[in-house]
Amino acid sequence: MADIAGIRIADIDAQGRARAAARADSLLMPRRALGRLLTLGEKVAGITGFDGMDLSRKVIVVMAGDHGVTAEGVSAYPSEVTGQMVRGFAAGVAGINVLGRHAGIEVRVVDMGCRADLSDLVAAGALIDAKVGPGTANMRRGPAMTREQAVQCIERGAAIARTLAMEGVRMLGTGDMGIGNTTPSTAIAALATGLPVAGLTGRGTGIDDAGLAHKIQVIVESIAASSPDPNDPIDILSKVGGFEIGGIAGLVLGAAQSRIPVVIDGVISTAGAMIAWLIEPRLTEYIFAAHRSVEQAQAAMLARMGLDPILDLGMRLGEGTGCALAMPIIEAGAKVIKEMATFAEAGVSAQ
Amino acid sequence: MADIAGIRIADIDAQGRARAAARADSLLMPRRALGRLLTLGEKVAGITGFDGMDLSRKVIVVMAGDHGVTAEGVSAYPSEVTGQMVRGFAAGVAGINVLGRHAGIEVRVVDMGCRADLSDLVAAGALIDAKVGPGTANMRRGPAMTREQAVQCIERGAAIARTLAMEGVRMLGTGDMGIGNTTPSTAIAALATGLPVAGLTGRGTGIDDAGLAHKIQVIVESIAASSPDPNDPIDILSKVGGFEIGGIAGLVLGAAQSRIPVVIDGVISTAGAMIAWLIEPRLTEYIFAAHRSVEQAQAAMLARMGLDPILDLGMRLGEGTGCALAMPIIEAGAKVIKEMATFAEAGVSAQ
Repeated sequence: MADIAGIRIADIDAQGRARAAARADSLLMPRRALGRLLTLGEKVAGITGFDGMDLSRKVIVVMAGDHGVTAEGVSAYPSEVTGQMVRGFAAGVAGINVLGRHAGIEVRVVDMGCRADLSDLVAAGALIDAKVGPGTANMRRGPAMTREQAVQCIERGAAIARTLAMEGVRMLGTGDMGIGNTTPSTAIAALATGLPVAGLTGRGTGIDDAGLAHKIQVIVESIAASSPDPNDPIDILSKVGGFEIGGIAGLVLGAAQSRIPVVIDGVISTAGAMIAWLIEPRLTEYIFAAHRSVEQAQAAMLARMGLDPILDLGMRLGEGTGCALAMPIIEAGAKVIKEMATFAEAGVSAQ
Repeated sequence: MADIAGIRIADIDAQGRARAAARADSLLMPRRALGRLLTLGEKVAGITGFDGMDLSRKVIVVMAGDHGVTAEGVSAYPSEVTGQMVRGFAAGVAGINVLGRHAGIEVRVVDMGCRADLSDLVAAGALIDAKVGPGTANMRRGPAMTREQAVQCIERGAAIARTLAMEGVRMLGTGDMGIGNTTPSTAIAALATGLPVAGLTGRGTGIDDAGLAHKIQVIVESIAASSPDPNDPIDILSKVGGFEIGGIAGLVLGAAQSRIPVVIDGVISTAGAMIAWLIEPRLTEYIFAAHRSVEQAQAAMLARMGLDPILDLGMRLGEGTGCALAMPIIEAGAKVIKEMATFAEAGVSAQ
């Protein structure tokens, strides 16, 4: 971690977690009858400490960036859609806007590396400017970005998490927007898990069988083009990653550094978290997986990190939409431990 | 249905549902990328009509009752706990209170047949009095209740649903409290599915191996004691049911009659819904299954009704706790269809 300045992850608060677990055991219900809700709450206590289990203020950070590899025809949509969707977020009409409002979760959008000029949105306060470059290079022909840019993505993402934590945000969710970004995410999955590309590659936004075969070939050739070192997460990110993926990696690291729980969304967010985890495997204790994505690369990376998704609703949108549904469930787990009475407190006959 | 006065279930609004599905197809995302969230929203539209998809006011109704079969030692807890837990609900310190508050869902508690005198809570406005009797009879020795009482439970439950709907409630959840009530619920599951009792019986609030074997025997002997007609749901309810189970059956019927979505919780709520469904199989279109319970009888009954649970969090508490987590997800599905822009509305390049 020496090359990523200032990011240090502490051990979890084992005592806080144990205190939460002990209370969970004695709550007014058959022993541990709320199942996984209790383990979610206990995990929160490990991150925040027992007295810090207040997750009322929640933010989902949507990281956006473009991908040079779209030149290879890996997506069903043109690259222009990335910038158009960022405008949709700013207008409040996209899926994450609806779901964020529904759940009382603020949505912040970050330009990590969009090709489009979105400076009007930045000026209007609707977009955070952390642009590292106007889209990555085509990774089939060489590295997607320089090593310096990869470090920059992570540092900027971590700085955003720290700033939000200082503003009083108590739980972060990650989201993504970037046409073509299941392609780099799958390359990261292959390198991080050692599994063959073909079994990890999905249809992204909706390509057909021929498109899928082509996408697999592009991913295999991209890895061959720059031979990333699977033991060097910064090398992986720079060669087959993306600016928004690096931003997500940084956000995850910065959240853990600030001792706030971080919830990851689908396959792109999981690829970002995977890069962060390869830097610091103790992140497993800080990350919650919101949902099981339709993209199979996600399951492989979650297994590598020892994470089990909370929801399984056949979703594959990204944007942080899974986080918007899972974050209230995690908060519910924390509240149950804090707010339910024990048998003794309620004066009810125990077993 | 002729013997249950005044309850008539209409066909769903197929046109409203089709309109929701058409809009879901054109929303600003890869086609149907929000997966099951969209089918949840479409199902809502079938119940409420497209223009009625406002689920903002939500209530969970917790039906409480006692069970004579507890005399056979089928539960890890004494019968007194039913009344004590109702007092816990009134005090706001139980699981459903915490989760209801968290989700912005009102909780109403109904005495369908508790053994305890809870009239002080009724006088204080903290409990709805619909008491059919002071606990059921021991079903191992004969019918749990009379046929008249079974009809009464259903009618009272349905009346509560209709009253809430008239007050402006737009979605109902079902909850239960009744020491011993996994035993009648499992008997109902066996009769409704034709599956052997042994494979359907779970540990309820936490009995050991010997307790489980004994519980299986009690259920088998209870069914043998009064030979319920598997084709007569009222006969099943009266012979091996419970007052709160009948109340839940009525609540489900009354919600459908009032064209509002009804969300069922764990195995007891599912047994109540099963009775209602045997009366009116079109209820499948009106019911949402909140979560997969640890109790295996629930899965068998959900399969019989063609329902697929939304969450799977290893929960087995009842009280409506699963509903409190799932109802916001169903509402999210409705909101996505209503509030997300289409590609055309947002001016984004379509596929």
